[in-house]
Amino acid sequence: MSRFFTESLKALQPYVPGEQPQDMQYIKLNTNESPFPASPKAVAAITGEEVSRLYLYSDPDCKALIAAIAKRYGLQPEQVTVGNGSDEVLWFALRAFCDENTPLAYNDITYGCYKTWCSMLNVPSKILPLQEDYSVDLSLYRGLDSTIMITNPNAPTGLCLTVQEIEGVLQENPDHVVIVDEAYVDFGGESCVSLIDKYENLLVVQTCSKSRSLAGARLGFAMGNAALISDLNRIKFSFNPYNVNRLTCLAGIAAMEDEEYFQTCTRTVAQTREKTAAALKTMGFTLTDSKANFLFAESSRIPGGVLYRKLKEKGILVRHFDKPRLENRLRITVGSQQQMEALLTALKELGA
Amino acid sequence: MSRFFTESLKALQPYVPGEQPQDMQYIKLNTNESPFPASPKAVAAITGEEVSRLYLYSDPDCKALIAAIAKRYGLQPEQVTVGNGSDEVLWFALRAFCDENTPLAYNDITYGCYKTWCSMLNVPSKILPLQEDYSVDLSLYRGLDSTIMITNPNAPTGLCLTVQEIEGVLQENPDHVVIVDEAYVDFGGESCVSLIDKYENLLVVQTCSKSRSLAGARLGFAMGNAALISDLNRIKFSFNPYNVNRLTCLAGIAAMEDEEYFQTCTRTVAQTREKTAAALKTMGFTLTDSKANFLFAESSRIPGGVLYRKLKEKGILVRHFDKPRLENRLRITVGSQQQMEALLTALKELGA
Repeated sequence: MSRFFTESLKALQPYVPGEQPQDMQYIKLNTNESPFPASPKAVAAITGEEVSRLYLYSDPDCKALIAAIAKRYGLQPEQVTVGNGSDEVLWFALRAFCDENTPLAYNDITYGCYKTWCSMLNVPSKILPLQEDYSVDLSLYRGLDSTIMITNPNAPTGLCLTVQEIEGVLQENPDHVVIVDEAYVDFGGESCVSLIDKYENLLVVQTCSKSRSLAGARLGFAMGNAALISDLNRIKFSFNPYNVNRLTCLAGIAAMEDEEYFQTCTRTVAQTREKTAAALKTMGFTLTDSKANFLFAESSRIPGGVLYRKLKEKGILVRHFDKPRLENRLRITVGSQQQMEALLTALKELGA
Repeated sequence: MSRFFTESLKALQPYVPGEQPQDMQYIKLNTNESPFPASPKAVAAITGEEVSRLYLYSDPDCKALIAAIAKRYGLQPEQVTVGNGSDEVLWFALRAFCDENTPLAYNDITYGCYKTWCSMLNVPSKILPLQEDYSVDLSLYRGLDSTIMITNPNAPTGLCLTVQEIEGVLQENPDHVVIVDEAYVDFGGESCVSLIDKYENLLVVQTCSKSRSLAGARLGFAMGNAALISDLNRIKFSFNPYNVNRLTCLAGIAAMEDEEYFQTCTRTVAQTREKTAAALKTMGFTLTDSKANFLFAESSRIPGGVLYRKLKEKGILVRHFDKPRLENRLRITVGSQQQMEALLTALKELGA
């Protein structure tokens, strides 16, 4: 830290993204990317002519992209906005709906960025502990005097709430925004988009990084009533008006319109997940009932940290969180069938 | 604004980017884009295969891109970081080096985002008035107890300080960061990059949006000593670790390596600027000595707001700021020779 860094953020702990080592070619099962390439329609949309046209700014209102998302989800364009990954969209939501006097409530075991963002924005965190089996204790969500973040499915557990359960939270907290982070919903969860016209306090955030094979394009989006979306745009235009680049707009539109590819990819990942989970159970692993594109698995024989390192030596990267209640678990991205077979073979060789 | 929006930002005035009307095809001279397409090397770098690979995250450390920028500017990689446009990089700098007790000092007439960002971050603004002829009064920059923003060349005036003058500001404010926003420096200004190894309090911010024809790719970068860069990365990793997307990394590397194209484009714009400025002076316009890719011009016959509207009716978009000391001026992007001829013809027809 330089001597010029603001006193107010000296305690800030940056988020640590999954490692991207360059020393060898790994089977990467550590950042929940899709095993499928971007849609062929996205590839076709990014022509040489469009790349030449990068000399022009992107549309700050992202009209065409927002229209495509709205159409796909049966919403009005005023009910949608976009950002440079769902990380940016979620940060906009925290900036808009939280402050020193309006905490953010979220689970003790969930996506690590929420805590970092709260710390950066001087927003108090209201931590709601998960139960012993990692399930959500819904009684903790009654009459919370704070903005609420529900990660559905949760990460790294993969566990889901039903739309009905989330509707209960919306009803019990009518004066606070409930943000539902649905980064992983397309692999088997139930989306709350269907509730948008009913609840003015609901904001649903999704990403093209997982189910739409566009992690490297950085595209996330928020859906909610027009007033909430207008609030997010107020933050966006006060921060970085041209936040989504031209090529990402094109890729995003193509991906939204390629419904068949989306369905095939997500269905295949879900099938591979179930098959891999069954094999791991047979080997004695304990697993949650993940509906995401990752498994949350514990070996009965080898501690999580050891297993993580041994897999890495064998060229397979998974994610290990060295934290209470997580240290014996691995978060394993559901890759291709071939990658999963390599994983199972490696685990057997290690005696896991 | 929804009833959920934070009280703390109710006064926030978002930045208003240059208009992007869709009703007809305009000659766009209002957002300082390059008249030249992206480098052919950038076009060649973004292959279909690379687009397919968007299913993978970008490198959060942007190692290859940073290496290319460092090489181009004769720096170490530790002295460079990148962002989603220089807007994001500048915002990171304000977040890192300003706070409630450390104001940002900047000119009364300059890039509008500084004020918006200060308002968003609860950072006091120390406004330093430009002189009658829009030149900077350097005596105001002595011993400022604040972080300092110098826009060089300034926008929308196009006027420059010399490196020697900025070195004076660095020496007189050794305990505060001096950010030099060099968005427009490549068209005739002098860069302060040469001072980086000498001053630990210097941060230089540049963009690929203007001189490198990549406005739509969103790529800005900061250069300074390693401790300052590490501070910016601390903010970046606490906000959006994957802030620069894969295709922008590729386009940025190609653009950095295509020195000949860069030189040709910037030299041509500078020549067109001088030629257009001379023609406007002959017509009776008053101009500043702009070294940027825009002119800051005042008609002796038609008020700025009227002229802006009449040009728009003729299919030519320029930027008009309806603010004290700016209302009679137009900021006109230096486009292609052909676009400038169309502008001059239109102005003559309007009797300007």
